[in-house]
Amino acid sequence: MGDYEHVLVTREDDTVTITMNRPARRNALSEPHLRELLAAFTEVGHSDATGIVLAGAGPVFSAGHDFADVAARDLTGVRELLRLCTELMRTMQSVPQVVLARVHGLATAAGCQLVASCDLAVAGESAGFALPGGKGGWFCHTPAVPVARSVGRKRLMELALTGDTIDAATALEWGLVNRVVPDAELDDAVADLLGRATRGSRAAKALGKQTLYAQLDRPEQDAYAIALEVMAAASQLPGAREGMAAFLEKRTPEWPD
Amino acid sequence: MGDYEHVLVTREDDTVTITMNRPARRNALSEPHLRELLAAFTEVGHSDATGIVLAGAGPVFSAGHDFADVAARDLTGVRELLRLCTELMRTMQSVPQVVLARVHGLATAAGCQLVASCDLAVAGESAGFALPGGKGGWFCHTPAVPVARSVGRKRLMELALTGDTIDAATALEWGLVNRVVPDAELDDAVADLLGRATRGSRAAKALGKQTLYAQLDRPEQDAYAIALEVMAAASQLPGAREGMAAFLEKRTPEWPD
Amino acid sequence: MGDYEHVLVTREDDTVTITMNRPARRNALSEPHLRELLAAFTEVGHSDATGIVLAGAGPVFSAGHDFADVAARDLTGVRELLRLCTELMRTMQSVPQVVLARVHGLATAAGCQLVASCDLAVAGESAGFALPGGKGGWFCHTPAVPVARSVGRKRLMELALTGDTIDAATALEWGLVNRVVPDAELDDAVADLLGRATRGSRAAKALGKQTLYAQLDRPEQDAYAIALEVMAAASQLPGAREGMAAFLEKRTPEWPD
Repeated sequence: MGDYEHVLVTREDDTVTITMNRPARRNALSEPHLRELLAAFTEVGHSDATGIVLAGAGPVFSAGHDFADVAARDLTGVRELLRLCTELMRTMQSVPQVVLARVHGLATAAGCQLVASCDLAVAGESAGFALPGGKGGWFCHTPAVPVARSVGRKRLMELALTGDTIDAATALEWGLVNRVVPDAELDDAVADLLGRATRGSRAAKALGKQTLYAQLDRPEQDAYAIALEVMAAASQLPGAREGMAAFLEKRTPEWPD
Repeated sequence: MGDYEHVLVTREDDTVTITMNRPARRNALSEPHLRELLAAFTEVGHSDATGIVLAGAGPVFSAGHDFADVAARDLTGVRELLRLCTELMRTMQSVPQVVLARVHGLATAAGCQLVASCDLAVAGESAGFALPGGKGGWFCHTPAVPVARSVGRKRLMELALTGDTIDAATALEWGLVNRVVPDAELDDAVADLLGRATRGSRAAKALGKQTLYAQLDRPEQDAYAIALEVMAAASQLPGAREGMAAFLEKRTPEWPD
Repeated sequence: MGDYEHVLVTREDDTVTITMNRPARRNALSEPHLRELLAAFTEVGHSDATGIVLAGAGPVFSAGHDFADVAARDLTGVRELLRLCTELMRTMQSVPQVVLARVHGLATAAGCQLVASCDLAVAGESAGFALPGGKGGWFCHTPAVPVARSVGRKRLMELALTGDTIDAATALEWGLVNRVVPDAELDDAVADLLGRATRGSRAAKALGKQTLYAQLDRPEQDAYAIALEVMAAASQLPGAREGMAAFLEKRTPEWPD
């Protein structure tokens, strides 16, 4: 894997863990940090890994944008930073791997956006989630985009307008995360859920994930227009053929890739 | 009612029950089965029934597509099958009757899609729901369309990517079904909810249901542009006039159709 | 504040309370009542208040449209009434203040629409919510628009098709309201949540709220196209600059407006 300063990229079997590694800055998303995260997701996206865990080193998952890297920027400078951040979120959804957030401590502002943008999320009981721009001066406009698509409207408004932190149990109830476990069991729960989410044909899973994001948020018939064509084409791929043959022959499938 | 081989169509008072009746194939949706379901919904849609229950005979509700009818098809053949399946889902939402899924045992893949596509759903405690393409080779692209519009995003991703089965209590918590009752009470609960959902003016209810599907998934002001015009026109129909008159005269309404 | 017949408009500190004050008519939304509500929201929207509470005098929050003012109208007349009602809902979302519904007793039909259209909602345990058009003759087409965007699809269908009332606890579970408290504690809970939702820079909060409504219900990348440009521009406003400076200097911010 590439050489990074702000992130750690480690691989174990088919899973790559990308760890935000600026603990002294609470994994704040400075431009260099964002660039490395984007490069890491792009690099792993081209690898044969099947799953990616996004984690944070130190006391929190991520505190969001790094104000030390924002405060002095003019409009063009902030716009470029936000375009980079949005490109990272889009890339996490377009890579062929299943992307799972491993959340401990706090995930705030763009850190909360990262959680909402991952396919799946497992949180330790210590985790908290917030859009703290609601408390102050720079509203969390872009973090609210994926959060709005994960929780209900009134809950989005409460998060975005108050800036208050919700605990892990509330995040689970609202559908922002998939699992909450004691922090000591976080790695086991991450491995378990990611293992189940990455089984089967790698090519079929990648196409599946990417098509989900393509059909979301659209009128139902528009979504069908996309999903139907993909599903028809996918039926001809080796993974689908093997899956159906194994089912009909009552044997364990051997996935072609 | 028409003569069917794979479905049973029975009527009691104003309710028609369409029962998938291929128990030995776990009510799998072969092309002939889909054609009969579409024909049955179309036929009942033109009748004066007010409600439709979709049920399954035998141990499960429906196991989804019949791989024995898919595995040998080329792209054109699968595409035609999926177009037929999508037409069935669309028809269930466009018929004037309230359509309620009576779910027991498993509702998987396109079987889960049927539940998500019904207006309402009542499940027995034995029920389980899954998008099992996530386990293997042929991803549940089209079943994920209505499921995505019933549960939150992270929950959709978990269902679609893992292929795991959720139980009835989880389906209720996630909003995929409206009621969960002991299996022995399933028919009573179906009759109770459907009775309440079909009362009032039949014409007003049909227009109401159809307009709901027209306005969903759109930006709010686009939805209002549809709902406002329909509601204004609907105010002039006999059902609305009788409803308002009865309210103002403090008497029980007599619905005109 | 202006002179109103059907609503009470009172101000305490930065919060204005708009009270529907036709208790003998259960705060039904006659055309004069709707006109005054629209005028009041427009007037307060131009004031320097930071929060608006929408409340109802008497036994219920609001019973929705006033059939005595609908029954005799022709199509054009009803259409004008619904356009006025929709304009009120749109205005509640476009004013710069945070709008919070204080709900007690019943919120039905367009009364339930008011709750769904407020940014936030706090309910007393006595509160009930319904789209009663589902019981009868005039379907709740327009009230279902914001309700559909607050609760899940199956829950919307149940509310809209049955017309039955859900209690406050269910409304909380479904995400239609943010808090449920004993009725005696309703004013305290309203003040607490509104206080937290209105802190910080008034200009930043207003832009934040308005941008949330602009980005909702759209495909994610369309939403980002809006939120990104607004957030970049917002970074240059005094509120954002002060918020970041205070954070970096570890002091309490002094909001510029």
